[in-house]
Amino acid sequence: MTQKLHPDTQLVGKAPGTLLYVGNKEVSDVTITIYEYNQANVQTRQITHLEHCFPHPDKFAVKWVDLDGIQNVEVVKQLGIAYNLHSLVLEDVLNTELRPKIEFFDEYVFVACKMLSYNTRKQEVDIEHVSFVMNTNYVLSLQEKPGDVFDPIRERIRTTGSRIRRGGADFLLYSLLDIIIDNYFLVLENIGEQLEELEEEIIRSPTRRSLANLYRIKRELIFVRKAVWPIREVVNILYQDEGRLIHKETHKYFRDAYDHSIQVIDTVESYRDVATGLLDIYLSGMSNKTNDTMKVLTIISTIFMPLTFIAGVYGMNFDNMPELHLRYGYFWTLGTMLVSCLLMIAWFRRKGWL
Amino acid sequence: MTQKLHPDTQLVGKAPGTLLYVGNKEVSDVTITIYEYNQANVQTRQITHLEHCFPHPDKFAVKWVDLDGIQNVEVVKQLGIAYNLHSLVLEDVLNTELRPKIEFFDEYVFVACKMLSYNTRKQEVDIEHVSFVMNTNYVLSLQEKPGDVFDPIRERIRTTGSRIRRGGADFLLYSLLDIIIDNYFLVLENIGEQLEELEEEIIRSPTRRSLANLYRIKRELIFVRKAVWPIREVVNILYQDEGRLIHKETHKYFRDAYDHSIQVIDTVESYRDVATGLLDIYLSGMSNKTNDTMKVLTIISTIFMPLTFIAGVYGMNFDNMPELHLRYGYFWTLGTMLVSCLLMIAWFRRKGWL
Amino acid sequence: MTQKLHPDTQLVGKAPGTLLYVGNKEVSDVTITIYEYNQANVQTRQITHLEHCFPHPDKFAVKWVDLDGIQNVEVVKQLGIAYNLHSLVLEDVLNTELRPKIEFFDEYVFVACKMLSYNTRKQEVDIEHVSFVMNTNYVLSLQEKPGDVFDPIRERIRTTGSRIRRGGADFLLYSLLDIIIDNYFLVLENIGEQLEELEEEIIRSPTRRSLANLYRIKRELIFVRKAVWPIREVVNILYQDEGRLIHKETHKYFRDAYDHSIQVIDTVESYRDVATGLLDIYLSGMSNKTNDTMKVLTIISTIFMPLTFIAGVYGMNFDNMPELHLRYGYFWTLGTMLVSCLLMIAWFRRKGWL
Amino acid sequence: MTQKLHPDTQLVGKAPGTLLYVGNKEVSDVTITIYEYNQANVQTRQITHLEHCFPHPDKFAVKWVDLDGIQNVEVVKQLGIAYNLHSLVLEDVLNTELRPKIEFFDEYVFVACKMLSYNTRKQEVDIEHVSFVMNTNYVLSLQEKPGDVFDPIRERIRTTGSRIRRGGADFLLYSLLDIIIDNYFLVLENIGEQLEELEEEIIRSPTRRSLANLYRIKRELIFVRKAVWPIREVVNILYQDEGRLIHKETHKYFRDAYDHSIQVIDTVESYRDVATGLLDIYLSGMSNKTNDTMKVLTIISTIFMPLTFIAGVYGMNFDNMPELHLRYGYFWTLGTMLVSCLLMIAWFRRKGWL
Amino acid sequence: MTQKLHPDTQLVGKAPGTLLYVGNKEVSDVTITIYEYNQANVQTRQITHLEHCFPHPDKFAVKWVDLDGIQNVEVVKQLGIAYNLHSLVLEDVLNTELRPKIEFFDEYVFVACKMLSYNTRKQEVDIEHVSFVMNTNYVLSLQEKPGDVFDPIRERIRTTGSRIRRGGADFLLYSLLDIIIDNYFLVLENIGEQLEELEEEIIRSPTRRSLANLYRIKRELIFVRKAVWPIREVVNILYQDEGRLIHKETHKYFRDAYDHSIQVIDTVESYRDVATGLLDIYLSGMSNKTNDTMKVLTIISTIFMPLTFIAGVYGMNFDNMPELHLRYGYFWTLGTMLVSCLLMIAWFRRKGWL
Repeated sequence: MTQKLHPDTQLVGKAPGTLLYVGNKEVSDVTITIYEYNQANVQTRQITHLEHCFPHPDKFAVKWVDLDGIQNVEVVKQLGIAYNLHSLVLEDVLNTELRPKIEFFDEYVFVACKMLSYNTRKQEVDIEHVSFVMNTNYVLSLQEKPGDVFDPIRERIRTTGSRIRRGGADFLLYSLLDIIIDNYFLVLENIGEQLEELEEEIIRSPTRRSLANLYRIKRELIFVRKAVWPIREVVNILYQDEGRLIHKETHKYFRDAYDHSIQVIDTVESYRDVATGLLDIYLSGMSNKTNDTMKVLTIISTIFMPLTFIAGVYGMNFDNMPELHLRYGYFWTLGTMLVSCLLMIAWFRRKGWL
Repeated sequence: MTQKLHPDTQLVGKAPGTLLYVGNKEVSDVTITIYEYNQANVQTRQITHLEHCFPHPDKFAVKWVDLDGIQNVEVVKQLGIAYNLHSLVLEDVLNTELRPKIEFFDEYVFVACKMLSYNTRKQEVDIEHVSFVMNTNYVLSLQEKPGDVFDPIRERIRTTGSRIRRGGADFLLYSLLDIIIDNYFLVLENIGEQLEELEEEIIRSPTRRSLANLYRIKRELIFVRKAVWPIREVVNILYQDEGRLIHKETHKYFRDAYDHSIQVIDTVESYRDVATGLLDIYLSGMSNKTNDTMKVLTIISTIFMPLTFIAGVYGMNFDNMPELHLRYGYFWTLGTMLVSCLLMIAWFRRKGWL
Repeated sequence: MTQKLHPDTQLVGKAPGTLLYVGNKEVSDVTITIYEYNQANVQTRQITHLEHCFPHPDKFAVKWVDLDGIQNVEVVKQLGIAYNLHSLVLEDVLNTELRPKIEFFDEYVFVACKMLSYNTRKQEVDIEHVSFVMNTNYVLSLQEKPGDVFDPIRERIRTTGSRIRRGGADFLLYSLLDIIIDNYFLVLENIGEQLEELEEEIIRSPTRRSLANLYRIKRELIFVRKAVWPIREVVNILYQDEGRLIHKETHKYFRDAYDHSIQVIDTVESYRDVATGLLDIYLSGMSNKTNDTMKVLTIISTIFMPLTFIAGVYGMNFDNMPELHLRYGYFWTLGTMLVSCLLMIAWFRRKGWL
Repeated sequence: MTQKLHPDTQLVGKAPGTLLYVGNKEVSDVTITIYEYNQANVQTRQITHLEHCFPHPDKFAVKWVDLDGIQNVEVVKQLGIAYNLHSLVLEDVLNTELRPKIEFFDEYVFVACKMLSYNTRKQEVDIEHVSFVMNTNYVLSLQEKPGDVFDPIRERIRTTGSRIRRGGADFLLYSLLDIIIDNYFLVLENIGEQLEELEEEIIRSPTRRSLANLYRIKRELIFVRKAVWPIREVVNILYQDEGRLIHKETHKYFRDAYDHSIQVIDTVESYRDVATGLLDIYLSGMSNKTNDTMKVLTIISTIFMPLTFIAGVYGMNFDNMPELHLRYGYFWTLGTMLVSCLLMIAWFRRKGWL
Repeated sequence: MTQKLHPDTQLVGKAPGTLLYVGNKEVSDVTITIYEYNQANVQTRQITHLEHCFPHPDKFAVKWVDLDGIQNVEVVKQLGIAYNLHSLVLEDVLNTELRPKIEFFDEYVFVACKMLSYNTRKQEVDIEHVSFVMNTNYVLSLQEKPGDVFDPIRERIRTTGSRIRRGGADFLLYSLLDIIIDNYFLVLENIGEQLEELEEEIIRSPTRRSLANLYRIKRELIFVRKAVWPIREVVNILYQDEGRLIHKETHKYFRDAYDHSIQVIDTVESYRDVATGLLDIYLSGMSNKTNDTMKVLTIISTIFMPLTFIAGVYGMNFDNMPELHLRYGYFWTLGTMLVSCLLMIAWFRRKGWL
């Protein structure tokens, strides 16, 4: 339950385009990896000096600059200058609380989205802010920290003859967005499994912990929902776009990514419905339990109150109580008590309480 | 309650157009049946070698290739090559978790939807993924497993003079979609009957099982809803389409299918409303029960506590307790107890508790 | 509570345009009444041979063919042939579960809607499926059974100089639709009165029966809502239509009917809101009752437990209990008990429990 | 709680344009007041003969005919004839249950709306149906009964040099609508104050009466909402209208009225949210109360049951009970009881129950 | 909980354009500060005589007139005359309950919005009404009271070379709106932190105070929501506007502000969802507590009732009760009681109650 609720407010009062990293301050080194490829050749470089990644006339069709560590604002700023990016774009790159968005500029398109992964150790969803800048021949991807979901893309780039090698920068952007959306399913699978366990538990025998877990899942879903709803719009705009930057043959692929994003949203909404249903079950389970507790009390009271009363009667000290002097009075009384007790039990059994 | 919640994640990280069957792995043999017909003639073949189904110049107006067993990815891939289908289409054919969708390509239209049937043995709704590819003179239908709802269509194709024999491939597609939608009513009939039983049960005397059943039905409805809402959009697009592939006279029929899909949605939504109302009844029934239990306890306590007190009083050992020495003191006391008991009963009766 | 939930599934698997009556099979005789009129003359005939109603060159401006008993599929079919109706239209005429709809054909417009009436004997809303077919000079109305809400229209047709006699077939259609919508108010008046009674009952002293009634009303509203929401759209399309079939001067009238349909919907929605509010009152009334029961128990226990304890103390058999040998020990004890009892009562009174 | 729920059904079955007053039948005399003014002069007449109000060539720019008492259908009818109004307009004027609406006719525009005022005596919102007919040089206002919110307008008309005197009929219509909307704030102020009192009461110590009051307020809000939502649309249409009847300079004023109507709606919706929140507080307050009652019972039982048990033990009649013969056995026992009692109290205190 | 619910009604009945300050009457002095700047120079003046701020041919590109103290209606009126503002605009400036809005006039654009700040002393959100009037070369900002969020803007204006100094009046307007929106995050951060504390408290051990706090937060959110939803529309209109007043290069900045406003709304909606979830947890926590109380009662009763009964039996005075005369009868009985007590405890432990 550590996904924090309150927004970051460092940027408040700063001029627009102020470059300030908003988010978890754990500094990590900047890593920049450059993938350059065309249908025939591919070349990968991990660079140390930023200049090496700057654009220059190139024999490769597509250049992918993949940067980890946007905490290093200076590097982001230089990259922005090199690629001639608007200062508002750079601000958005660094603002890790930004909602997924797309914005078209004259020379490039800017896309921001959320990369989700399930952190099994902390039992929570990890949300990482990722930004893309795409032009006809390059894609920049800017991430918060090392570790991402792009390895299959890297693999495909290395594979001669793969579809991605035949495509342009727009196809690369599609591939990156699509794999991000695909990974939402991994997160949802995880949440779905927890929901199924919880379902069994709550229907069988709910405990306080079940409710806390249910609440935690509902809370996770609120955050996942915030991350995935806008991505649908982003991909839809890319799919509908009739612009210069997206080739006609890539449209079908964005349509595919769009379908997947809707599938994600559908699943999230189903989960919310299921979670709401489970809450009802839980609450009614609780009131059932109260009723059961009450039944125990009622049964005990109903059996022993009459018995205690009878005992009380023969404990009275009246001079003239003929029963007391009967030979078997005591045993008759015990018998009566037994019978009364059995009658009560029979009555409760007929009522279905026992 | 076995409709699993979590999505399948096998496709995550795979390249777009990767052909991988997503779903239940129970392998079944591939069966391909080909129906070819025009107004005058009809011919049915069950083929073993895939080549036989490939398109070739033909004397028949319409060719329907009906494939069972998309688990066999190789066969689907060959079919895709033969009919020149986009790799994304083939991916969608195999992705059994795909949301119902429609997509127009230059040469054909692709439709994916869900075939629902009620599995009375397992007490749950069976959802099967079915895809269609339609061109001017053929329809491909790709199903997961043997057994479908298309038998009436096959019957009509065999009947000379039927409307379907006079129509083109678009009319065949309409017929197949329409019968799928029609079958939703069978599923809804089943759910509706359960809901009616449950309604009676919950209003008469609810048990814990009622709640579990109600939850199960609500959960089924979440899945049915996910399957039927998008089909409305699919049929609407076919109905509105001014394209080459749908003849003008078929439009009225798609409009009809559209009306039916809305009717299905209306019914699903009514069920949800009814189910919500039943939950309220159930919960208030539970709190009623608690109150009844409490009343039993209160009645018992209220009757016996004063009696026990009286007995206690005359069990005291004071030297000077004149009543103890009265001749009929004991019997007077018993009489008083009886009267007090009757008064209590009368009071509860007036309060409406007995 | 007899409005059945599950849909009729007889049509499943039937070819489109299959003529099959869907609904209550109580066969009734077919009655066909023909009203022909123009501004000057009017003529009414109840016919036995269907041919008499077929269209033929005519001296009357408007011809209204009013058919009761669509269970007789054969007659509907012949009428369809005579008036050249599409087979899908005839299917819709017979499908009593059809959602209200409007569809324009080249030669006529088809309108389906629901005629509601409150069946006071069965305490439920009666829903009858009514279809209209209108051309420039005729209106067909097709009903399930004898008895309808059209009598005022018939009266107006018979009245020389009435607005309806000056109008065309479009005005007749408007009049029929408008009176159907008007009758929704009668049904709503009935439900509204029940809701008001229930409101008083639930606020004063709710019983289990109140809840069952509330549920019944909510359930009725679900069905009424399903019938009235689409009618708004139907009338709106007629009002907006710039077509050949609706005269300009009739538009204002359809606008009027449209306003009425919105008024109906507004009322239905208000009822739903009120019913939801009543449920909250009911539930809190129940928990109030539980609390009251509990108070009785607590008062009794709190008064008698200390008394019984005191009696128990002086029932102990210790050798050395000085109080036992006091002259007025017994009476002092009784006095103490009385005081303790009065103190308890005072305390409960101050707490507002008595 | 007297705002009736069920609609009036007198009009059902009547021909369109039938003039029948729908509403409270308390007959009041018809009063017609005519205000005629231009920038320089103003003239007010209360007329007795209807003819005096009929349109005639006039030296005044604007004529406002203000009629109280639409119960007198005959007068309304004559007015309709004089001003050449459509019979449907007259029907709408008389139908006091009509939803606020606007309708453009060739020669005039018709506006119907609701005038709200808070009846402090009956503790409920009074809703009066008011209709307006506006042409370039006159405004008719038709009300149910004497007493309205238009006095400030009358004052302004009498004031030479006021904005209204420089404006046309459209500005007069705006002024009348705007003051009606302004008065909604008075009603909302009243409801808001009640809600604030209730808020304090429910948070401090809720009673059954609080719930009844909350329900009453929610119910009022349902009716207020029905009256104010459509007025927004009415004013918006007037504001957007590019027609002949509204001058360009009046547009800004209708925009102003539109803003006010949205402010009203916003406030109503906030109230609904607050009321829903209060219901939650109330319900949880009730369950808190139950818990408190239970605690009293539990404390009493927990303290006295062990004590009574101890007393019971030493009331046993065994021959060999050494404690009974101890010199201070009785006092030790009393001491033990006291200690046990104190321990229980300490335990409850630590649990936070005392 | 002091944000008042009921609207102010002073304006009711006033003529449109009546200048009347609506709001908190605490009079404060009027302060007018004028900032004039172009790329090269900047000049700040705090003026005492209103005339000094009137527009006149100017060497500066942008003039910002910042007025605190709209309670002084006379000053606002003179400003309105000097800048030729419509009387409705002035009315809106003074109406502190106005919903955020934007309105284009021929010569200027008017924007009203809410400035939020969290008053930590009163524990509530402070809402201040702020209006802007912008033309090509000036911006008027009209505030209720001293103290605002504009200091960073002032700082930037003083800084030669800052983006704001290169921009026009439209950029200044953007900057002011953007910083207002940015400050919403500060308010939300505060509410978010409270919500997190409450979350922990409610999950750990809810008290009545938790509910009151939760209600207070929900109520705050209702007001914040009312303030922030419309601002989105305002900024969107500025962003979409193709008018004369907004330069093309400023559009990107308004787009940025638009993204921020959506982020605010997203956060508010998440908070509402979280608050609803917390209420469920709270309510179920309460019913859990009731159940726990009940368990204590049941355990005590179940243990002591049988014991008291046994004691009662041997307190009976029958002549013939053999056990009484056994040598160790008393001790056997005590032993039996102990065993029965231990058995009960074991049973409760197995049930998980202890």
